[in-house]
Amino acid sequence: MADLLERRYKTLGPYSPLFYAQPLEFVRAERVWLTAADGQRYLDGYNNVPHVGHAHPRVVEAIAQQAGTLNIHTRYLNHRVVDYAESLLATLDAPLDRIIFTNSGSESNDLALRIANQHSGARGLLISDFSYHGHTQALAVATTGLVAHEGLGAHVRPIRVPDLDAADASRPEAEVLASSLAEVDAAIASLQEAGHGVAAVLFDSLFSTEGLNRVPSGYVAGLAKRVRTAGGLVIGDEVQSGFGRTGRSFWGHQNHGIVPDLVTMGKPMGNGHPIGAVALSAALLDEFGPRNMYFNTFGGNPVSAAAGQAVLDVLAEEGLVERAASGAAGIRAALEGLRRDHPWIGPAKGEGLFFGFDVYDRPVGEAGAVPDPGRTKAIVEAMRARNVLISRIGRTDSVLKMRPPLAIEPGEVGILVETLADSLAEVEALSRT
Amino acid sequence: MADLLERRYKTLGPYSPLFYAQPLEFVRAERVWLTAADGQRYLDGYNNVPHVGHAHPRVVEAIAQQAGTLNIHTRYLNHRVVDYAESLLATLDAPLDRIIFTNSGSESNDLALRIANQHSGARGLLISDFSYHGHTQALAVATTGLVAHEGLGAHVRPIRVPDLDAADASRPEAEVLASSLAEVDAAIASLQEAGHGVAAVLFDSLFSTEGLNRVPSGYVAGLAKRVRTAGGLVIGDEVQSGFGRTGRSFWGHQNHGIVPDLVTMGKPMGNGHPIGAVALSAALLDEFGPRNMYFNTFGGNPVSAAAGQAVLDVLAEEGLVERAASGAAGIRAALEGLRRDHPWIGPAKGEGLFFGFDVYDRPVGEAGAVPDPGRTKAIVEAMRARNVLISRIGRTDSVLKMRPPLAIEPGEVGILVETLADSLAEVEALSRT
Repeated sequence: MADLLERRYKTLGPYSPLFYAQPLEFVRAERVWLTAADGQRYLDGYNNVPHVGHAHPRVVEAIAQQAGTLNIHTRYLNHRVVDYAESLLATLDAPLDRIIFTNSGSESNDLALRIANQHSGARGLLISDFSYHGHTQALAVATTGLVAHEGLGAHVRPIRVPDLDAADASRPEAEVLASSLAEVDAAIASLQEAGHGVAAVLFDSLFSTEGLNRVPSGYVAGLAKRVRTAGGLVIGDEVQSGFGRTGRSFWGHQNHGIVPDLVTMGKPMGNGHPIGAVALSAALLDEFGPRNMYFNTFGGNPVSAAAGQAVLDVLAEEGLVERAASGAAGIRAALEGLRRDHPWIGPAKGEGLFFGFDVYDRPVGEAGAVPDPGRTKAIVEAMRARNVLISRIGRTDSVLKMRPPLAIEPGEVGILVETLADSLAEVEALSRT
Repeated sequence: MADLLERRYKTLGPYSPLFYAQPLEFVRAERVWLTAADGQRYLDGYNNVPHVGHAHPRVVEAIAQQAGTLNIHTRYLNHRVVDYAESLLATLDAPLDRIIFTNSGSESNDLALRIANQHSGARGLLISDFSYHGHTQALAVATTGLVAHEGLGAHVRPIRVPDLDAADASRPEAEVLASSLAEVDAAIASLQEAGHGVAAVLFDSLFSTEGLNRVPSGYVAGLAKRVRTAGGLVIGDEVQSGFGRTGRSFWGHQNHGIVPDLVTMGKPMGNGHPIGAVALSAALLDEFGPRNMYFNTFGGNPVSAAAGQAVLDVLAEEGLVERAASGAAGIRAALEGLRRDHPWIGPAKGEGLFFGFDVYDRPVGEAGAVPDPGRTKAIVEAMRARNVLISRIGRTDSVLKMRPPLAIEPGEVGILVETLADSLAEVEALSRT
């Protein structure tokens, strides 16, 4: 493995990120279990791309069968892409009735910004602070969550997203809502004063990178309303929150009671096969389409469509969204139990099978308690030592992040929670010494 | 098929481009033959993505085998991506010794621009006039070859690429070279005067979209030298010209005797599987890497790497680059023969298995002869009526474009050329009536 790491450095370079102080080399995987080069098996509590389970035979067979039959662009007709577009649109609410296929979430968000800029005639963009939406040049200037040398664009305003479980836990929800929306108003006013206007707000319904913030009821709807009033579009980035991840709904935005103007997709869409999409209304496409020759060579090819269709089919047939919802209820209860034993962890955050909690240096609520990234990292490494993969997120990297494939079964959720209990106990014992 | 077209309009919309007045619906393909829904077979003289042949069993097997084993991002170690990176780097010249994997040519070119902008501290970009390099926002403002509502960026200068077979056919090559490079100097000066500086030149070694321009010897090297002197980087877009397409070399830039600072790849790389890459030097990556957290979720996954490796293996084992070179010689001779019968077509253009010719309204060289897009379109449709797929390119859509998979065999090249002879005769006869 040391040799492989060295060879990797000499080809991909040393900057491409790797998990863990001692990186893991995986050689195969099945459902929610990864096998390392040394033969050890790891429970996957982290990966959201293999959505219906690693190497799901239905998805593999769909890819193999279609790749062996025909893989071609959309300048010829093929029923696969149309069948899949219909299936995908059936999961979305009116007026979203058109799909543009891409190859990644980054391509999708970049395209959504193009559409919003052209629609509004403006460039101003609202993002939530400490979010990330992709690696293209247009998106690199629209993040405060990842390091990009370009820096924040002059036309971008990050807005602080409230969190009733952390920073705003001590304030009444109505007050948090009012002050947060006042911050949105101020950001919009700032964009307008600077002459950028308002093109869009781009947000992830789970506020994942931000730390799974629990926002006040009505916050997202209020944000969307304000942006639309200012002439901008609402872009729902469903790369992380979509395809049933939250259990409660198929799409994250549905949990907030809104329908975005543009819905962007990626990661879990093809269970690892590179595919993304932008959903929009015919009216919006009728604006963009005639004014731009948009063509995506790989976008909508029949193999990608077959992979995407297989994911939708498996989600339905195996009842994975429902399973995510019921699994989540159990997890939430278990995490509350862990809080009693370890008062230095915050309340359960997230939705469905994207969950976690804030980690503090002392009991939550105690004077001087602050987020503790070191302790959070120690939990992640303790879990790894017990062969369970998880990670951490948030502004200070002090929110534990658990996000298993939806294929995880109740007994495996049990292993995840029990291992977490052991790891918390170990880290707590260590911090006492 | 009418029903499928209607369903497509209601899901993908009517703007997604389709070939032919009566679009073709394909249901399967093998090597260089596509089968339509009505059972008719078409010889593929157009598609460069299925590079080693449609549904090549080696590539299909590699994808199926790896997808059934493991598909994961690069935050864990996996030997597949490293093996493939080594194979790919072995085809490139020093100092190109690092690879960043992406999912498409668009992602690759967008990333190359980010790297060049950061390296130079400038934004100014030279492109060849009537070129196209991708669909992201940063690339939409850098094209004059496709309609993008954004319009050309203030920091972009399109330079007219000479063509010794068409616009510049009557001038001495040395004079064309001097005047063309003087235009480069002027564009650089214009960027500097406007305060944009020079970040890069981005070009396709075949000048495909432009119309397969035959440039004077030393033109590309002179262009590269001038950009570097001005502090910019040379980005070789090998999405069309790479992987042996030109027969003469594995990479198009090698035909011009230069090594770009950044080489971008896409289309044929995975024979249809969505994969792209940027090759660069360790020195350049050492600048970009520490200042940017670049992570591409699907980029470098083991399934994409397996597809890419299979393409390299098949190219080598089946001697496809050599076959492209020998096939090209025969095609060139045949096209010269056709010129004698049809003096209204220009000399054979392009390299290897990307070839074509200009189509005029009257014999080449006759007073008042101008490019004839209508006649070019008629040839494309006449070929389609004879079950051979080709297309057209260039500023006036009057350059016939033929670009079969490299897997095409001599007998099939014969069918392509004979069908072209018949189609030219038909179109000539029609134009006499």
